[in-house]
Amino acid sequence: MAARPEPSPSVAQTGAHVIEALSIGDELLSGDTVNTNATFLGQRARALGLVLQHVATVRDRVGEIVAAVRAAAARCDVLLVSGGLGPTTDDLTTRAVAEAGGVEVELDPEALARLADKFRRFARAMPEANHKQAELPKGGEWLPNPIGTAEGFALELGRCVVFVMPGVPREMRSMMLEQIEPRLARRLALTPTVRRVYRLLGIGESAVAERVEPIVAAARTRSPGLAATFLHYRAAMPEVLVILEGTRDEAGNAATAEELAALDAELVPAMAPGVYGIGEADLPTRVVLALQRAGKRLACAESCTGGLAAAMLAAVPGASECLEGGVVAYQNRIKQALLGVDAALLAEHGAVSEPVARAMAEGVRRSLGSDLAFGITGIAGPGGGSAEKPVGTVHIAVADGERTSHLRLQLRGDRGIVQRSAALWAMKLVWDRLHDAGLAAIEPHEPLALE
Amino acid sequence: MAARPEPSPSVAQTGAHVIEALSIGDELLSGDTVNTNATFLGQRARALGLVLQHVATVRDRVGEIVAAVRAAAARCDVLLVSGGLGPTTDDLTTRAVAEAGGVEVELDPEALARLADKFRRFARAMPEANHKQAELPKGGEWLPNPIGTAEGFALELGRCVVFVMPGVPREMRSMMLEQIEPRLARRLALTPTVRRVYRLLGIGESAVAERVEPIVAAARTRSPGLAATFLHYRAAMPEVLVILEGTRDEAGNAATAEELAALDAELVPAMAPGVYGIGEADLPTRVVLALQRAGKRLACAESCTGGLAAAMLAAVPGASECLEGGVVAYQNRIKQALLGVDAALLAEHGAVSEPVARAMAEGVRRSLGSDLAFGITGIAGPGGGSAEKPVGTVHIAVADGERTSHLRLQLRGDRGIVQRSAALWAMKLVWDRLHDAGLAAIEPHEPLALE
Repeated sequence: MAARPEPSPSVAQTGAHVIEALSIGDELLSGDTVNTNATFLGQRARALGLVLQHVATVRDRVGEIVAAVRAAAARCDVLLVSGGLGPTTDDLTTRAVAEAGGVEVELDPEALARLADKFRRFARAMPEANHKQAELPKGGEWLPNPIGTAEGFALELGRCVVFVMPGVPREMRSMMLEQIEPRLARRLALTPTVRRVYRLLGIGESAVAERVEPIVAAARTRSPGLAATFLHYRAAMPEVLVILEGTRDEAGNAATAEELAALDAELVPAMAPGVYGIGEADLPTRVVLALQRAGKRLACAESCTGGLAAAMLAAVPGASECLEGGVVAYQNRIKQALLGVDAALLAEHGAVSEPVARAMAEGVRRSLGSDLAFGITGIAGPGGGSAEKPVGTVHIAVADGERTSHLRLQLRGDRGIVQRSAALWAMKLVWDRLHDAGLAAIEPHEPLALE
Repeated sequence: MAARPEPSPSVAQTGAHVIEALSIGDELLSGDTVNTNATFLGQRARALGLVLQHVATVRDRVGEIVAAVRAAAARCDVLLVSGGLGPTTDDLTTRAVAEAGGVEVELDPEALARLADKFRRFARAMPEANHKQAELPKGGEWLPNPIGTAEGFALELGRCVVFVMPGVPREMRSMMLEQIEPRLARRLALTPTVRRVYRLLGIGESAVAERVEPIVAAARTRSPGLAATFLHYRAAMPEVLVILEGTRDEAGNAATAEELAALDAELVPAMAPGVYGIGEADLPTRVVLALQRAGKRLACAESCTGGLAAAMLAAVPGASECLEGGVVAYQNRIKQALLGVDAALLAEHGAVSEPVARAMAEGVRRSLGSDLAFGITGIAGPGGGSAEKPVGTVHIAVADGERTSHLRLQLRGDRGIVQRSAALWAMKLVWDRLHDAGLAAIEPHEPLALE
């Protein structure tokens, strides 16, 4: 979709097995629901060393589902189906998959007993409509669902194994991880793809490419595995991810995790000071973890972001250990009353200015008694801009009692993007401060939880 | 996907024209990017009175794109393609669509001149690689793209017209709205679907169904158009949407906008006090609009939501006119210092309690000098729960100087869902207070902006 500096010929050879997904549900086609299930399945396929090659999304219509299942089963080895296992009359997936396989649907008394037991545990009467959730295509194998009423199933269709999951994301994810992946591991010779992700803020995609590509080009000469490595970039405003994947070439060569990790020594200095971490964990998570480890506490003073920076930090489990709280000072009066920003400063420089950002950071630190604090003031738009201070002008300051650093940004994008970018930049400045003090390291972290 | 109380047989008849979409890009299948383009196209199709019947997602491989275009063109009247129009070697869509149509690709000197002009305006040198963006399948028609380098195109493939758009969401959306929809309107006899959406918070899907369905059933007897109306529900934790769609039956009958609007008189009282609005605009937008109209100003005191409620309000353009700001009082010390919550109250009842929520709302109102204020305190999880106050326990209070109302909630879901639900509940209480005072009405509102 977006321009990427390097083509990806090697990806095509990664998976000897062809994996496809089929998402079922009117709400996915009417635009009422975003298909995040397909995104998750793509991520899991990649983690397992497989490549999801095709996703079809169809409505809750037997004929449309049958056609999609048959077309996919003719092309692929593994088909991951989700949606349409509920109790209502528009849940037609079981019947349609059976029809695609040319088999009958049978009521399974044991499955019905399990279902009745679930309703008893939920202290609810089982409606007649739910009986259909105990129907299984002949020859199919049940896939347990401990967190919902809809069990899934597996069914062989010629050379293709079809796994059918509920559409509720939480149930689908759990069934993929706990039921389907172990079955895939037994069935296929999986060679999980090694991946190393560098996370950057403050350096553009083309600038980082200029620094990274000579290093990767030199590395490619060192081993056949490194030669096959796939390098790509992903811009996630305002962040950039640099991704190295140990894809497999036609001869089966792929970089090892150790080979990729060894590139840190050259890549991390080359990407400094933009790089803040390695791995999937995001910036708020890393800031919270670094603060926890350092035993430091943070306070936030926000104007144009309206509390978003504090909320993004508070979204990280365990944030209460290091987040004091903050002040959302949308109006100048609040900046004065709660943050002690001098009225003269506001009058002379305006609310969106370096001195006010500094005074906000210092004021909230003093007021809340924290170790560190940041202040954000800016113009998120769409209104409020001027020639001197156009929409996207943001001032951020970070104070630790010894010194207050400051950054002026000219951000692009709509109101939401400006607010999100400003919040992440404030976290980056906090991270930099911790890093400069030896209290945070650029190191691998995975997310704290799956969801 | 989710259970819906009513099947949707009538939807199948809505579109005499079959519309499909094809999303192209490795990043959509690797799980790096969520396919929101397909969601947008589904929404636009529905708004135009068309039904998107199938979405395929394929990688940047000529063979896979050609197969997907041919399969879709054999099934549908309109194919909406997005992605793969960039300048890099993995942007292969133009070539593949031409191959699917059995035509050559030709360099268009006029398109090349337009492209060169864009680069001049961006003050950048045009790389050689971009020349391919001036290539058009023979017989195709260019679709202008004033905000990016990638022009789109339309190409007839038998009975199917294929529209090809860039994958960058902003450019895709603009091309769909400004270039493709007018062409569809000229080509097809469009009869936009009338739709009425009721927005609720505080009433479950099955409870609302019990109240709504007798009213809709009675209405169906009044006209053939109303008889064909499609009623469905969408749970968007913690909100529920009740959606009436003027779908068309086989004889061409469909409800008019006036017929659906006339149902407000019965439906709105039946859904009270859960219903807060009609139309697509969300709760934060309605609260901001209601405050603006009423000339009232709001302050927020947040503990477990960490600033999320303030940030959701601040995301609405124009929020600065009615949002004073707020205090994120994660720690008890801050609740005392900045909100004036009594230490004895905290010691006696704990931070997550009715008295503390009340004191927070009253304290922030006093401290910030606002008309209205809310306080939120709770346990978002995953840690911090107890038998008496399990994870998901949330206390919310709203104060206006005359009285302070309070609500205790037991929310379900992970940390993010509990935080989001609590924030929305606080807004609902503010909305209710304005509504009770005659300062807000349950009325239609569309979103403030498209994005």
